[in-house]
Amino acid sequence: MNLKRFFSRSASAPAARERLQVLLAHERASSGDSDLLKTLRDEIMAVIAKHMQVDGDKVSVKMERGASVSTLAVDIEVPFDGGKKAA
Amino acid sequence: MNLKRFFSRSASAPAARERLQVLLAHERASSGDSDLLKTLRDEIMAVIAKHMQVDGDKVSVKMERGASVSTLAVDIEVPFDGGKKAA
Repeated sequence: MNLKRFFSRSASAPAARERLQVLLAHERASSGDSDLLKTLRDEIMAVIAKHMQVDGDKVSVKMERGASVSTLAVDIEVPFDGGKKAA
Repeated sequence: MNLKRFFSRSASAPAARERLQVLLAHERASSGDSDLLKTLRDEIMAVIAKHMQVDGDKVSVKMERGASVSTLAVDIEVPFDGGKKAA
């Protein structure tokens, strides 16, 4: 997977903040059970919120449901001083 | 983000299994504190394991640490009958 190229666009963002991007892709053998991503989205957001100050205004969530592959993209911008909550 | 193109390669995988891919990118304002991804990796894997049968042999984890951007890619293959644990 060429992650470097995929994420390279984010490198041009202003330096005075942090940013976390989460991408999930779920490839299903059957066409049902497409709610796994929705569940994971909520639980992963809870995990992230434990470690970063997540401001609802600065979160972008995009879900795409296909016949066999569903994808979820979460993009979180964090002010520099809010990047660390508790290590 | 062009998720469709990025994940399109996985569409050619055999149909009798499920697959979950997780990608994280952390863009830091400073060069320290690069352990966030490691923490998130462990906690997100725990979240996923609640919902899917995750076999260690079928999990690929790749981390790349850059000066300002670190990335993490997790690729999980699940046998068809193991795709659902508890909804």
